[in-house]
Amino acid sequence: MNRQQLIEQIFAKRTFLCVGLDTDVRKIPAPLRTSNDPIFDFNKAIIDATAPFCVAYKPNLAFYECLGVKGMQAFERTICYLKDVYPQHFIIADAKRGDIGNTSAMYARTFFEEYNIDALTVAPYMGEDSVTPFLSYPDKWVILLALTSNKGSRDFQLTEDAGGERLFEKVLCKSQMWGDNEHIMYVVGATQGQMFEDIRRLAPTHFLLVPGVGAQGGSLQEVCRYGMIEDCGLLINSSRGIIYASQSTDFAEVAAQKAQELQQQMEIELMNIR
Amino acid sequence: MNRQQLIEQIFAKRTFLCVGLDTDVRKIPAPLRTSNDPIFDFNKAIIDATAPFCVAYKPNLAFYECLGVKGMQAFERTICYLKDVYPQHFIIADAKRGDIGNTSAMYARTFFEEYNIDALTVAPYMGEDSVTPFLSYPDKWVILLALTSNKGSRDFQLTEDAGGERLFEKVLCKSQMWGDNEHIMYVVGATQGQMFEDIRRLAPTHFLLVPGVGAQGGSLQEVCRYGMIEDCGLLINSSRGIIYASQSTDFAEVAAQKAQELQQQMEIELMNIR
Repeated sequence: MNRQQLIEQIFAKRTFLCVGLDTDVRKIPAPLRTSNDPIFDFNKAIIDATAPFCVAYKPNLAFYECLGVKGMQAFERTICYLKDVYPQHFIIADAKRGDIGNTSAMYARTFFEEYNIDALTVAPYMGEDSVTPFLSYPDKWVILLALTSNKGSRDFQLTEDAGGERLFEKVLCKSQMWGDNEHIMYVVGATQGQMFEDIRRLAPTHFLLVPGVGAQGGSLQEVCRYGMIEDCGLLINSSRGIIYASQSTDFAEVAAQKAQELQQQMEIELMNIR
Repeated sequence: MNRQQLIEQIFAKRTFLCVGLDTDVRKIPAPLRTSNDPIFDFNKAIIDATAPFCVAYKPNLAFYECLGVKGMQAFERTICYLKDVYPQHFIIADAKRGDIGNTSAMYARTFFEEYNIDALTVAPYMGEDSVTPFLSYPDKWVILLALTSNKGSRDFQLTEDAGGERLFEKVLCKSQMWGDNEHIMYVVGATQGQMFEDIRRLAPTHFLLVPGVGAQGGSLQEVCRYGMIEDCGLLINSSRGIIYASQSTDFAEVAAQKAQELQQQMEIELMNIR
C-alpha cells in the first residue's frame, strides 16, 4: 500500500488506529483454547470485530515465534485472512529486524515477498546497509525505531553527541538520506508526548507509528497535538487495551467497543485538519 | 552451557570456532535440493563434517524464516539434531531480537525454553528493559551487538557523546550493570581489528562473538592479538567461508577442510595462552 492509499483510508474511515495483534496464547479466553488453532481463531474474531474502526493491523512476531512452527502457521493464516477479507488494511509485521546487508535482504524477501506484508519494523543500530535492503520494494515500508515507548529508550536513544544531537535525532536525519517518506516511517512512543515537537522538526512529513497509548500510559490527544500533520501522518497502535479488554467470551464485542472509542476520539482529532 | 564448560570445550578441542549455519536454499548443492527437507539435510552434513573442529554453531534465523513454516521446521530439526548428537556444542540463535520488556520476555521463552538454545544475539537500541528479560536464565546468554562487522556500523555505533564516549562503548559499560560475564557476551566484528584493544579495556573478561573473518575480510590473527584473554574469551564465527566453500557434491568434505584450517590456526593462537 502506498502513502496516498493509506491517507485515503484514514480520511475515508475517520480513523488512524492500528490494532496490535500481540496474541498471547495464555490470555485467550478459555472456550477458544480447545480449538485446533486458538491463536488464529482469536485473531479472526478480533479482526472481524475491529476492522471498521482501524486502518492497520500489527502482529508482533514474538507472540507467534514463541509457539514454534504452530505459531508461525497461525501468523501465516492471519496474514492470509487479512489479505483475503480486508485487503484495504495496512499490515505491519512488528519484528524489529536488522542485520548485515545480505541478511537484511533475506528478511526483506520474507516479509515483503513471501508474506506480502506492507511494512516491517526495523532496528537502526547496525546502520545504513542493514536498512536499505528493505527500501527497494515499491509500496513497501520500513518503520525504523526512533524513540521507543519503553523505559530503556533513555539508555541510548537520548544520548547527545558533541554537537548536542541525540541518537534518535541522528537516526531520523541519517535515514532520510537512505529513503523517502514513501518508504520510511518512524516508531515514536506515545509516552514521549512532548518529544513529538522535536520529531516533527526533523521529520515533518513522515508517518509515525505510535505505540504506547493505553496500557503503556501515552495520551492520544497529546500525540495528536504535537505529532499530527495535514496528511494525518500518524498510525496509533493499541494492543492490550483492545484485544484483552475482556478475557471472557465477550472479548470480541468489548474489543470492538474499545476500538470504536479510540476511533471516535480520532475522528475528533481529524476534524481539526480536514 | 555455562562459562566454565565453554572454556573447557575450547581448550579440550583446541578451537574457538563457531560455524554459522546461514543456509541459503538457493546455494545448496543440486543433488540435495530434491530432498524433502534440503535445509536440514545440508545442515546435518555440514554439522557432521565440522563438529570436530568447532565448539559452537550459529544458525541465523533470517535464512530459516524466509521459507516460512517449512524453514522453521528445518530450524527446529537442526537444533534437535545438535542437542541429540552433539550436546557439547554451544548453540547461538543469531536473531538480533530486542523489544519492550514483556515482548523480550516472549522471545526469551521462545529461544531459551522452547528451543533450549544457549545464547541469543540481541540489539541494544531499546535499552535495559529490552535486554534484562534474557538475563534471568541460568547458563543462558545474551550476545549483545556492540561493534558490528558491516559498513553501517559507522553510522551510529561510533557516535561520540559530549564526553568522547562512543555509542558501542556506552553499550559495553551500561550493559555490565545489567548482567555479568556469565550471561553477557558481545558481538564485535573481525573487521574492527584495531578496535579490539578499546573493547578489551571496557570488557576485559567477557566472551566476544566475532563475525566477519573470511567472507567479510577480517583477520583471525589480528583479532587474537588484541582480543584474546587468558580464558580465550573469543568465539570466532565463519559462515560462508565454510558452508559454501564448495557448492558441488563435495561440499561437506570441503567444509571440513576449511573448518580444520581455521581450527589449526586457532590451536596456534591458543598455545600463546595455555
